[in-house]
Amino acid sequence: MLLGECQFLALSLSMWVEPTPAPMPNLEILTVNNTWMLVATFLVFIMHLGFACLEAGLTRAKNTVNILFKNTGIIAIGLLTFALCGFNMMYPGEAWRISGVLGFSGMGIGLPLNYDQIAYANGAYTYWTDFLFQAMFAATAATIVSGAVAERVKLGSFLLFSLIYVALVYPITGSWHWGGGWLKAEGFYDFAGSTLVHSVGGWAALVGVWMLGPRMGKYANGKVKPIMGHNMPLATIGAFLLWLGWFGFNGGSVLSADPNAVSFVFVTTTLAAASGIIGAMAVSWIWQRKPDLSMVLNGSLAGLVGITAGADTVSVVAAVAIGFIAGVLVVFSVVFLDFLKMDDPVGAISVHLVCGIWGTLAVGLFSTNPQHTFWTQLLGVAAIGGFCLLTSGTLFFCIKKVLGLRVSESEELEGLDLGEHGMEAYTGFQFFTTQ
Amino acid sequence: MLLGECQFLALSLSMWVEPTPAPMPNLEILTVNNTWMLVATFLVFIMHLGFACLEAGLTRAKNTVNILFKNTGIIAIGLLTFALCGFNMMYPGEAWRISGVLGFSGMGIGLPLNYDQIAYANGAYTYWTDFLFQAMFAATAATIVSGAVAERVKLGSFLLFSLIYVALVYPITGSWHWGGGWLKAEGFYDFAGSTLVHSVGGWAALVGVWMLGPRMGKYANGKVKPIMGHNMPLATIGAFLLWLGWFGFNGGSVLSADPNAVSFVFVTTTLAAASGIIGAMAVSWIWQRKPDLSMVLNGSLAGLVGITAGADTVSVVAAVAIGFIAGVLVVFSVVFLDFLKMDDPVGAISVHLVCGIWGTLAVGLFSTNPQHTFWTQLLGVAAIGGFCLLTSGTLFFCIKKVLGLRVSESEELEGLDLGEHGMEAYTGFQFFTTQ
Amino acid sequence: MLLGECQFLALSLSMWVEPTPAPMPNLEILTVNNTWMLVATFLVFIMHLGFACLEAGLTRAKNTVNILFKNTGIIAIGLLTFALCGFNMMYPGEAWRISGVLGFSGMGIGLPLNYDQIAYANGAYTYWTDFLFQAMFAATAATIVSGAVAERVKLGSFLLFSLIYVALVYPITGSWHWGGGWLKAEGFYDFAGSTLVHSVGGWAALVGVWMLGPRMGKYANGKVKPIMGHNMPLATIGAFLLWLGWFGFNGGSVLSADPNAVSFVFVTTTLAAASGIIGAMAVSWIWQRKPDLSMVLNGSLAGLVGITAGADTVSVVAAVAIGFIAGVLVVFSVVFLDFLKMDDPVGAISVHLVCGIWGTLAVGLFSTNPQHTFWTQLLGVAAIGGFCLLTSGTLFFCIKKVLGLRVSESEELEGLDLGEHGMEAYTGFQFFTTQ
Repeated sequence: MLLGECQFLALSLSMWVEPTPAPMPNLEILTVNNTWMLVATFLVFIMHLGFACLEAGLTRAKNTVNILFKNTGIIAIGLLTFALCGFNMMYPGEAWRISGVLGFSGMGIGLPLNYDQIAYANGAYTYWTDFLFQAMFAATAATIVSGAVAERVKLGSFLLFSLIYVALVYPITGSWHWGGGWLKAEGFYDFAGSTLVHSVGGWAALVGVWMLGPRMGKYANGKVKPIMGHNMPLATIGAFLLWLGWFGFNGGSVLSADPNAVSFVFVTTTLAAASGIIGAMAVSWIWQRKPDLSMVLNGSLAGLVGITAGADTVSVVAAVAIGFIAGVLVVFSVVFLDFLKMDDPVGAISVHLVCGIWGTLAVGLFSTNPQHTFWTQLLGVAAIGGFCLLTSGTLFFCIKKVLGLRVSESEELEGLDLGEHGMEAYTGFQFFTTQ
Repeated sequence: MLLGECQFLALSLSMWVEPTPAPMPNLEILTVNNTWMLVATFLVFIMHLGFACLEAGLTRAKNTVNILFKNTGIIAIGLLTFALCGFNMMYPGEAWRISGVLGFSGMGIGLPLNYDQIAYANGAYTYWTDFLFQAMFAATAATIVSGAVAERVKLGSFLLFSLIYVALVYPITGSWHWGGGWLKAEGFYDFAGSTLVHSVGGWAALVGVWMLGPRMGKYANGKVKPIMGHNMPLATIGAFLLWLGWFGFNGGSVLSADPNAVSFVFVTTTLAAASGIIGAMAVSWIWQRKPDLSMVLNGSLAGLVGITAGADTVSVVAAVAIGFIAGVLVVFSVVFLDFLKMDDPVGAISVHLVCGIWGTLAVGLFSTNPQHTFWTQLLGVAAIGGFCLLTSGTLFFCIKKVLGLRVSESEELEGLDLGEHGMEAYTGFQFFTTQ
Repeated sequence: MLLGECQFLALSLSMWVEPTPAPMPNLEILTVNNTWMLVATFLVFIMHLGFACLEAGLTRAKNTVNILFKNTGIIAIGLLTFALCGFNMMYPGEAWRISGVLGFSGMGIGLPLNYDQIAYANGAYTYWTDFLFQAMFAATAATIVSGAVAERVKLGSFLLFSLIYVALVYPITGSWHWGGGWLKAEGFYDFAGSTLVHSVGGWAALVGVWMLGPRMGKYANGKVKPIMGHNMPLATIGAFLLWLGWFGFNGGSVLSADPNAVSFVFVTTTLAAASGIIGAMAVSWIWQRKPDLSMVLNGSLAGLVGITAGADTVSVVAAVAIGFIAGVLVVFSVVFLDFLKMDDPVGAISVHLVCGIWGTLAVGLFSTNPQHTFWTQLLGVAAIGGFCLLTSGTLFFCIKKVLGLRVSESEELEGLDLGEHGMEAYTGFQFFTTQ
């Protein structure tokens, strides 16, 4: 999603309407592109509310304030951090410190001197739009972790982890592909972030879950005791808002309002989400014998994560297949993680990591562009996975040593809302005390 | 809403700005149109969350998971079915099998060979946008039924009904007008679907309610026992999201970003919703002596359904009147249906069928276009009503015979969440057992 | 935000892309502008759902239906009233009755004869868009009052107040600046309404709170007894939807899709909200020792209100500073108002009045335009504050004498939902009776 990556609109539009000669990029197209990118930006913004609702809905009432607080804090931290340093690490332009691996073009944001000319030449959008769209993406990576470590992680420790992860790790791996770094040179392709966003969050979620251990009582006497979410309408609102936001997440990753490209991405994205629902519904209904709402919601997200890497480069039929397989995968992954006693309260690892990997590899299998190969895709998955495991492991380890990662047993029993915030999410409502 | 129906933008824009000669449709306008239609598409998408929230909020907590599951399933089924066959039945182009009555241009979706040239000539938008916008519409028809049959319908039976209704019935009636069929030739007018979407869902809702019978305990000893919704904030979120989505539902039905047309439709749509609220508020406050929130919410939707058929063709004052009358109608209709012991938990028949008919006829009364006559409008209402009654009746009857329509008494008492899904919507909360 | 105030797009675009000569405003730009303004319109619309959710979530369950009803009613009343007379008072054009102070160009809305030519010359958008965008703004002013007087105000009295306030007071103060009146002539600047919208609501909130007195039991024996909100996920949904809507509130106040201006406003708006969160989080965590979710949510809104007056005219760093200070201010203000026994259940006065004043004065401190001075900004704050105090005081006083403002003690104890509406928000749920 580097500026330099944009197809020239002149070119893409001339493919779309053949009778006329390709026009030069112009002010009108600039304005439309920019308007669309701003729409995409506010759509990605609303994903943060989606994450907050989904995560709160799928966990227990006694930890709800904590979850909402974390998610509100993360977007603030993510946006400001990305303005301070992340953006200039992810898109270093010429300012590589280690060629293709680590770049940084300075602190803060500000209109580059020659930006207007470049933007005009590309028929693109403004610098500020570029920054804000990317900043909205950045914060999502940390939010993914939030769901996996919910109901037991210390608030301050988690916010500190998020700050560093968004400030350093996400921009570095991002620079490898979207910033024009070494993975781009290798031919790796990730359209809108199955790997660069979702897996980056997912790997950290995996490490976090492993370091924290399961919630009390989840795996007692060799059995898995399901801990049900407390508010399924809230979880449903969350999943639908995430789907809504994905129109901007994928649709905006076209980086222009190119009619053919954006429309096509809308169709692949939507149908993958729909077939993700069907995939998860089928497995859940047939295999688990009860049609499970949380599986179906995660199925839609699985389809969306799955299609994100190749939304612009696979056929409609392939998109349906990718989404369906993602929906099937997510159910098995949730069960398998429980078998491993990896306690992920909202299924974040299954949705974002497992389906993120699947979607990235699927580009190698289904892409209509012969330059995308399975092995290059695997290389990208492995390289970014390795880096994320290393960095998130180190980070979580250091924070655990210095501040501690997990709340006390009594606080976990009482709930983090009272323990960390001194307030309840549902004052006045009566609850069963066993929850 | 057939492509061929689009006004030439050149024409409509030349009306808007007279000093200059009408320009040829061009790439810039194409891009703006397409961008607006994609915005309208995601707005219609969010109506599905609106329906889910409204329906769940206005029913009982013990059936909430079931409702959310149904609504998540319907959109997936609707989108995929419409891609597989619905789109090509609704817009058969030249491929009529029975002229003007039944057409089908083949399975699946794919860019027609000469699409670009046609789109360019019309100054319209891409094939993929066309498909997706229409697909989002299709699923709404089935969702309307969902609310009316809530709290007692079997999950599998309902999903099967929805699948067939969206796959066959909705596209056939749609083809009669928007697909360029016989009702279009007769001069029938339905701008955005008071009849083609809302009544089509409403008629099936009527049949479903009649076949299923009322919920247990609703009409005991000749009295109506109100069964209150369990979550009014959720219902309110639903109504507002539906209103939000209607900006795309009606605004997108202009089928271009034509500044005059879209803006005007926004104004008529919004003021009709507002006056629907006032109408329902007045009747509820004065006649029922208590200002009833669910009536006011349904009043806004009544106004919206009412204005949908003529949003582009009535004056602002007429829009206010249409909305107000719809808001009044909806309250009386809810009471009247209870008098008939037709148990519609969310008022779907009153909102979508009654106000859908009203809005369609109102075009004949208020349209500024003299070609729209009351009798033609009535013909359309009757023809589509008859077809929907016949088909939905047959469908529900067959499904009842084969699979059964209604859950067991014990399941209905216990709630469909435990019965069909083995889970609760609000784990941990304490409830009164009488609900 | 008067039409005449629009920068010529020709000019602003020529600043943005220097190589080409400034083009004439044209049909394409008209269409993009109009599309963007319609998007902004539906974003501001969704703020009304945001207000409803935030207010309901931060108050008690027993008053929830009442709050949702008020907020649904206000938008209907506001839109219709603004169509009937508000719009033509706020933007009187040449029809000043008292020069620069009071204007009115007639009842109702309708396309002015020469509108197209003017719009074309300005490269702007349609009359209907102009009306609807402004109408959405108008209703927000009354909604702000709603939160402050919640849980004790009589429904009818409040709706009557809102009707008159939106019909007369908001348009008159609006005409002084955006309508081209005397404050504009004085050089006062309020980009999107820190004063003209938020403070106008905030002053009335202050008067309403003072006239009504605190809720029963809030200040007992010289102590402040916190009355906790009953649904924090709902409050969080509200705050995020308000933030979402603000992209339209501020972004639409550019009154065009000018790429530079809208993008920049998006960035200042977003970063101010983020730093408002950090400001409120810091004070709440350090000073109150518990990170308080409601403070953090109000911190985001504080940042947004704060940046609203100068979003287009301060630097990015200044925006972050303005937001941070607003976030700090809001916490102290909430505590200070409690010290004064001014009972504002949702913090509306602190968010909208205190941060509205702060944001307006901040333009005088931080604006990059030397024509904006602190003293002119203070003049605007004082003039509008004085007028709002006078008018809202008179209005509340008259309504109190004629209809009464406050519900009976028994109704307040029982809750307004049963008292005013005869229904509950959460039928079936068990509550503690002490709430």
